[in-house]
Amino acid sequence: MALTRKKITVVGAGFTGATTALMLAQKELGDVVLLDIPQLENPTKGKALDMLEASPVQGFDSNIVGTSNYDDTASSDIVIITAGIARKPGMSRDDLVNTNAGIVKSVCENVKKTSPDSIVIILSNPVDAMTYAAYQTLGFPKNRVIGQSGVLDTARYCTFIAQELNVSVKDVRGFVLGGHGDDMVPLVRYSNVGGIPIEKLIPADRIEAIVQRTRVGGGEIVNLLGNGSAYYAPAASLVQMTEAIVKDQKRIIPSIALLEGEYGYDNLFLGVPTLLGGNGIEKIYELELTAEEKAGLDKSAESVRNVIKIVNG
Amino acid sequence: MALTRKKITVVGAGFTGATTALMLAQKELGDVVLLDIPQLENPTKGKALDMLEASPVQGFDSNIVGTSNYDDTASSDIVIITAGIARKPGMSRDDLVNTNAGIVKSVCENVKKTSPDSIVIILSNPVDAMTYAAYQTLGFPKNRVIGQSGVLDTARYCTFIAQELNVSVKDVRGFVLGGHGDDMVPLVRYSNVGGIPIEKLIPADRIEAIVQRTRVGGGEIVNLLGNGSAYYAPAASLVQMTEAIVKDQKRIIPSIALLEGEYGYDNLFLGVPTLLGGNGIEKIYELELTAEEKAGLDKSAESVRNVIKIVNG
Amino acid sequence: MALTRKKITVVGAGFTGATTALMLAQKELGDVVLLDIPQLENPTKGKALDMLEASPVQGFDSNIVGTSNYDDTASSDIVIITAGIARKPGMSRDDLVNTNAGIVKSVCENVKKTSPDSIVIILSNPVDAMTYAAYQTLGFPKNRVIGQSGVLDTARYCTFIAQELNVSVKDVRGFVLGGHGDDMVPLVRYSNVGGIPIEKLIPADRIEAIVQRTRVGGGEIVNLLGNGSAYYAPAASLVQMTEAIVKDQKRIIPSIALLEGEYGYDNLFLGVPTLLGGNGIEKIYELELTAEEKAGLDKSAESVRNVIKIVNG
Amino acid sequence: MALTRKKITVVGAGFTGATTALMLAQKELGDVVLLDIPQLENPTKGKALDMLEASPVQGFDSNIVGTSNYDDTASSDIVIITAGIARKPGMSRDDLVNTNAGIVKSVCENVKKTSPDSIVIILSNPVDAMTYAAYQTLGFPKNRVIGQSGVLDTARYCTFIAQELNVSVKDVRGFVLGGHGDDMVPLVRYSNVGGIPIEKLIPADRIEAIVQRTRVGGGEIVNLLGNGSAYYAPAASLVQMTEAIVKDQKRIIPSIALLEGEYGYDNLFLGVPTLLGGNGIEKIYELELTAEEKAGLDKSAESVRNVIKIVNG
Repeated sequence: MALTRKKITVVGAGFTGATTALMLAQKELGDVVLLDIPQLENPTKGKALDMLEASPVQGFDSNIVGTSNYDDTASSDIVIITAGIARKPGMSRDDLVNTNAGIVKSVCENVKKTSPDSIVIILSNPVDAMTYAAYQTLGFPKNRVIGQSGVLDTARYCTFIAQELNVSVKDVRGFVLGGHGDDMVPLVRYSNVGGIPIEKLIPADRIEAIVQRTRVGGGEIVNLLGNGSAYYAPAASLVQMTEAIVKDQKRIIPSIALLEGEYGYDNLFLGVPTLLGGNGIEKIYELELTAEEKAGLDKSAESVRNVIKIVNG
Repeated sequence: MALTRKKITVVGAGFTGATTALMLAQKELGDVVLLDIPQLENPTKGKALDMLEASPVQGFDSNIVGTSNYDDTASSDIVIITAGIARKPGMSRDDLVNTNAGIVKSVCENVKKTSPDSIVIILSNPVDAMTYAAYQTLGFPKNRVIGQSGVLDTARYCTFIAQELNVSVKDVRGFVLGGHGDDMVPLVRYSNVGGIPIEKLIPADRIEAIVQRTRVGGGEIVNLLGNGSAYYAPAASLVQMTEAIVKDQKRIIPSIALLEGEYGYDNLFLGVPTLLGGNGIEKIYELELTAEEKAGLDKSAESVRNVIKIVNG
Repeated sequence: MALTRKKITVVGAGFTGATTALMLAQKELGDVVLLDIPQLENPTKGKALDMLEASPVQGFDSNIVGTSNYDDTASSDIVIITAGIARKPGMSRDDLVNTNAGIVKSVCENVKKTSPDSIVIILSNPVDAMTYAAYQTLGFPKNRVIGQSGVLDTARYCTFIAQELNVSVKDVRGFVLGGHGDDMVPLVRYSNVGGIPIEKLIPADRIEAIVQRTRVGGGEIVNLLGNGSAYYAPAASLVQMTEAIVKDQKRIIPSIALLEGEYGYDNLFLGVPTLLGGNGIEKIYELELTAEEKAGLDKSAESVRNVIKIVNG
Repeated sequence: MALTRKKITVVGAGFTGATTALMLAQKELGDVVLLDIPQLENPTKGKALDMLEASPVQGFDSNIVGTSNYDDTASSDIVIITAGIARKPGMSRDDLVNTNAGIVKSVCENVKKTSPDSIVIILSNPVDAMTYAAYQTLGFPKNRVIGQSGVLDTARYCTFIAQELNVSVKDVRGFVLGGHGDDMVPLVRYSNVGGIPIEKLIPADRIEAIVQRTRVGGGEIVNLLGNGSAYYAPAASLVQMTEAIVKDQKRIIPSIALLEGEYGYDNLFLGVPTLLGGNGIEKIYELELTAEEKAGLDKSAESVRNVIKIVNG
């Protein structure tokens, strides 16, 4: 009956996975296992050890280990999947989707065996379809298979609003539905700063510019970095979702959830407002949408369906 | 050119003042001076020492000293005034107002001398009028004289909403204008949970019950305690305002501010949305109000004016 | 298989109990139940509600409830006992011991029924004997019955050392064995600041003065307060022990533990270095002591035995 | 007289610099400017923006900007220099030293102009000599030029001790004098766990193994990573030193300080115990050393002198 630490596995020890591991440990959410493929076992161990060596200075008591062996992840409470490749020049979208779907399925087969009771959070791209692929492979109940996109999109949106008004990010609240990128459906009506609707504070054209910048927020970072994509804000987003679950916080956070009738969609994973707690997705909130918002969400749904077709090829 | 700690004085070492001092130190916002009258010098020193002895365990590096001598508060960056008596049985409101106005004025005469550049936050009751009295005595520019009421009212309001929905308090956002108690004007339209308007989530009669419970939130605690009034949430509210200023956070927080035309009032201290940063109140936000909300605010304003009349005798 | 919050009960809603509840919630260590006798049910509920209303501002997701009903504490992971009376003028020590032993036994009978798997931490005075009384009543294995004294004594000792040298409390490390007060055995040899032995930094007579001040550290606060005893540092000490257990931190912390041969004592609860983790006291460290230190510890042990004789009547 | 945020510049936006910027922002120590060379301006901006976009989720109010223009760093309170190249295959040590000395000098000429009142912390390798080079170029008083090595070495040493004993890193305290690598002089006598000397807890041969592993701790990470060197623990170390200064914490932390007679050395930068506060290095602690420890420190000093000769070539 001892009180034990939670165990959290991060699959994929690239920039996002490694930064996620660090932030999980900083918050003492549990012990962390960072896993990558056997060819990257040593660098994975190196990153984990380097982080662990930061613990006396940062003052956290989370163990962090690097591995390529799923046995070391056994009985994880949470598994976060960041594995996957980035699109390379000349690569077709179908190739990207198929490659990453293969990776995600392979990871999930291992997770299914070694951590059958875990809650799984997926970041791999394209994330809606990859969450679907994970769900198919894992065979877990839908509350335990969750995709990340809306936390990140919302974080970018709120950052831009805070910058526009020169106010604290702590007071900016927004909400983004649907998929990443052009498919994103920001609920401008519901966005507020300290409770004040942003429409009262920011001119319409500036709001539109912020929404558009958010839509291409991932691309903005890719273009600046020149070689690679964002990882700090994605990692922070994964950690917020994980914290909500590990601490059973009952937070209202956008997640990619399996819809079974909600918003008029069936058997589709899409970004919607959810209640995240100790059971994973404990509830999906159905908001009334304007015609424009619904049209945006339909477009998102259509995009996701098209990608899933590739996966199911 | 050394980097130095901020200095924060808390006047009044009762439950609220002492709890405020503790929370300031826990957040390492600066060194804390806890001051009370000479007759209470020893208990004040005792509380300060007890808190300081918690510092190795809680891990904070803030010095805390108790005193009855304003010289020890010299050159404070922030002065928080919690001094004042509670209404006793048989005491008229006028007597309460006059007694506390006398206390606040006396405190402010000392603060004016010893910390002429400080930003002053007032909690003493009735707070709108006491903030006015402080402003008159201090002669400081209006941005440096701030009353607390809306943060506390909003905190209670958000607590009740979170309980109603069984969701995290982290995701509840509300806003309360005007004075305490029956004069409170909660902006229900602008209240949301994770960005979703509460009107979409809570039936109207339950919202009304929550608003009403918030209005008498202070009395609810008084009735339960039997002997005394709330201090944990009031202290936390003072600390949030202080943090916004000390860290120049540019937070949008309700404060009691001097209105000079805003919302149609002149030369009146009233609870309104403000931007709190390194200059104290850096901006007042004027929201469009419905007729009902404006009527509520007018009632608040009238109440404050009546109390100020007592103060000005 | 949902991830759930820990449940922590604090028995006794006086200053120490209430401050403990607040600090537990601030650290989000779990949901908190604050319990006191039926006659104090309303004030207990009032304090709990006031704290909860601080949660939106302080940003913690811990529920806090006040009660006088042990059913509300059912299946607690940790139970912290702060109940007991303070010595009143004219009261003999035997009367104090018997009164508090009666209170602690009554509490423990309830805890045994409602939280049979809990780990119990005792603060009630005189704490060594009260821990023994709790152990007898609970019938729990010895690792799950723990008294607090050394964390607090050490905290005071470290505070005084930090003040003497004007250095951060974060870098001061000391260790106090044995009982409270005159029976305290500070291991000066092992005390250090940033790893440097204090004997290299502070003259012997000043160290002696610090040790002596620590011995009467509780009395210093009592004398200053005039009416009551310390509660901030005691509460922080209880919370540090609780955090070590809840997060399975494997911290080396002085605890009052049942000795069965360690240090040459048998069937005695005494303050010794322990490893605190998810199983409560997971290990007792036996240090080599100098003759002087051992004599001090013998004196402590003798005092505790004498009090236990009173308890066992 | 407004309260303003501190301004902290990090020169070098590689892994260590970027991670340092993130950790500074997470702790809200001030606004952060991340600077790298013009050719890397876009990636530097990209990393800064990505971090900033994490702020709504991580809840910190620090601005972070990327730049290649020293004007953007003007009037920084703290400047952290991580710039420099890693040794490449076939590169002589002299070439490495000369290249990095050139980089550090160039950086310092800019810092001298744009932030003449700043406190400068150097990480660039070989760090003792680079700190000397910085000191020469800056012309700042010695308290404002500080090198990092001992915090990192100590962190590794403490990590290994915590692992050996399976105890919390929070309770492990060690101290490392002298230079990095083989020149490191760990003060085993003064190392303790919860105040208990490690020599009482760990067999001598295991301690020796831990010391040896610490000596090659940087190399262990390099070998594992295969391509690059440690950055998480180095960044955390820089941030701990910065926090001590920004918050005027008076922490006792090993720093690379200019010795003018201390420990028998003159005009030499070497790792020694220092008091870090708002003035930078406020004090150097001179410990009595054993003959063996002194010999170790002499060897360190000799190594540093040899490298400085190359710099002064």
